[in-house]
Formats: sequence, structure tokens, C-alpha cells
Amino acid sequence: MARTRLTPERESELYAAVLDLLREVGYDALTMDAVATRTHSSKATLYRQWGSKPALVVTALRHNKPGTLGDVDTGSLRGDFHAVLSRSDDCQMEKDAALMRGLSHAVHNNPDLLQALRELLVEPEMTGLDTLLRRAVDRGEVSPDNPALRYVPHMLIGAFATRQLVEDRPVDQAFLLDYVDSVILPALGV
Amino acid sequence: MARTRLTPERESELYAAVLDLLREVGYDALTMDAVATRTHSSKATLYRQWGSKPALVVTALRHNKPGTLGDVDTGSLRGDFHAVLSRSDDCQMEKDAALMRGLSHAVHNNPDLLQALRELLVEPEMTGLDTLLRRAVDRGEVSPDNPALRYVPHMLIGAFATRQLVEDRPVDQAFLLDYVDSVILPALGV
Repeated sequence: MARTRLTPERESELYAAVLDLLREVGYDALTMDAVATRTHSSKATLYRQWGSKPALVVTALRHNKPGTLGDVDTGSLRGDFHAVLSRSDDCQMEKDAALMRGLSHAVHNNPDLLQALRELLVEPEMTGLDTLLRRAVDRGEVSPDNPALRYVPHMLIGAFATRQLVEDRPVDQAFLLDYVDSVILPALGV
Repeated sequence: MARTRLTPERESELYAAVLDLLREVGYDALTMDAVATRTHSSKATLYRQWGSKPALVVTALRHNKPGTLGDVDTGSLRGDFHAVLSRSDDCQMEKDAALMRGLSHAVHNNPDLLQALRELLVEPEMTGLDTLLRRAVDRGEVSPDNPALRYVPHMLIGAFATRQLVEDRPVDQAFLLDYVDSVILPALGV
């Protein structure tokens, strides 16, 4: 897809508007018409640049992420997890959690959204996480056959997704850091 | 609330119909009118018996559960977790996961639903889980100051909630049993 006609600033602006709309009305009610109106662009431009609504939404979500997990390299697994979690402040985390709640519902009725999420967001993050975990194995911090290695994504996303239901409090940095130290690192034998 | 006018069979039938509707249309679109029509009862009866839509929905969810966690007592924590997970077959688990996905979205726009879920479902289950964990501590299987103890609900619900997104596969018994053995028990030092 040719994106040469949009400046990076304009692209960021567009993605921010898509995420605002997503938070306001949810995925199902978010139409390309609404995005076009909100961003003062034409639907033709949106389809030319992003191809489809799921691709636009997921690209906006990815754009919102601060870098790749694999780029974080502090020299220890604990340091890496803490560095990753320190990239977002509490306000950003609560916004991300709200988006994720909305999308986890929407994916069930929208297989094309699930596919876009997996291809454009989940898989690149998994690859980054694998890099980070492989370095911990190479340093000898984690045994290569530790069975919890394959469940690190479930642990991380699960912590993110369940605090509100379990504790009636939104997710924040202090909670996630303590979850890493109390659950994820011990399960990995670190 | 007086429930003397409904037989247990009729009550079960009603709860099953509420869960069917919940799966079909979601919480927001589930109206007391729709429940009344589906179950051939009057709205007055529904409100007299359950007081409100969130209370009816959550009571139906709780009715669907096989007993309390605290009643499971096999003599070891691993045995208890495995016994709890063996009470539901894969089909039931996928249905439960679908319900939970729908509700985790709905709670955000319905504070009264979140409150009913917490009071009628989450808190009793937590109490049961506490009983089960306290027995493991009393047996000396888990150290009383293990920091993962407070996160067992997050780990369990998180596993349940994230498999579809992470692995593109529905949750099943084999996955949950392996998650218990690979993550939860090691985090607890068992």
C-alpha cells in the first residue's frame, strides 16, 4: 500500500482519531464514514491507504505502541520486563486496557479483525518477546526447557486483562511490576 | 426475595434460557422482555424473583457452576486444581469463555452488572479459592508469605481469557491443566 501521500504527522493524527473513535463507540459502531468525517479525509483515501477497517484499526493500535519488545535489552530478564512496563504510564495503561476489553469482545463477531490483530499486533509482539526471552535463556537465567516459557504472553496479557474483574481496580504500573516479580519470574525459575 | 413459586426445574430452565439469550445477543441487547418471551413468564415475575437484570444474569451464571471451589479437597493443591478443572468438559469451557468475553466488555458500560458479578460470582469463588489455598498453606505445600498467593485468581482467569488471542485456539482442559502445572504451581513454589 502506497502511503507516500500522507506525512508522518498526518498519519499519527489519523491513528489517534481512530483510537479515540474506537474508545468512544467501540469497534462495531466504528465506520469508515465516521473515521472519514472525524479526520476530514475521504473514504477512498482510507481504503487506498489501509485496505480495510480491521487493518486500519490494528495499524492504529500498533502505531500507538512504543517500539518493539525485542529492542529492550537491559542485561537481565527482570530489568527487561521492568523497562517494558515503564514505557507506559498508568493513564496510558488504563486506556490500553479499555481498548483491549472492547476488542476482545469484537474479535468474536469479526474474524477479519482477529486475523488482523494476530498478524499485525500479536505476532510481532510475540516475536519481540521471544527475542527478549531467548536472550534470558542464552544468559543462563532461564532453563531452555522451562515449561512456563511458552506461557509468558498468557501471563502478561492475563494480568493486564483481569485486574478490574478480580480486584475492582484498574491496571497500573505498580500492579504489573509486582505481578512480574511475584508470578512471571518465579514461574520461569528466575 | 421469595422464590417459593418456582420449582427448581423451572428455575433451572429459566437460567438456561437466560444464558442462551446472553450468548445469542449479548448483555446489552438482552432485555427482560426478551427473557419473559423466551421463558413464557411475565416480566413482573422476573422482577419479583430477581429484582433486576444484572442480578438475574449473574444468578443464572452462578447456577451454571458445578459446586463451590472450597468443597474440592483431594489432599494436594495439584489434585485440587486438577479436580476443579475436570468438572467442566471442553464444550462447557468454550461456552463459559464466550460468556466471559461478552460480559468483560459489558461490565464496562454497566457498573451494576460489575457489582452483581463481583458480589454474586467473583467473591464467592474467591472465598472458595481462599479455602483451597489456605489448606495448601496449612499442609505446608505453599509458604504463607508466597507473593503469588494473591494472584492465583488473576492467573486462573487470565489463562482462561487469553488463549484465543495468543494461540488462536479455544481454551480446553488440556491447556488449563498444563498451565496449572507450568505456571501456577511453580509460581507458588509447589
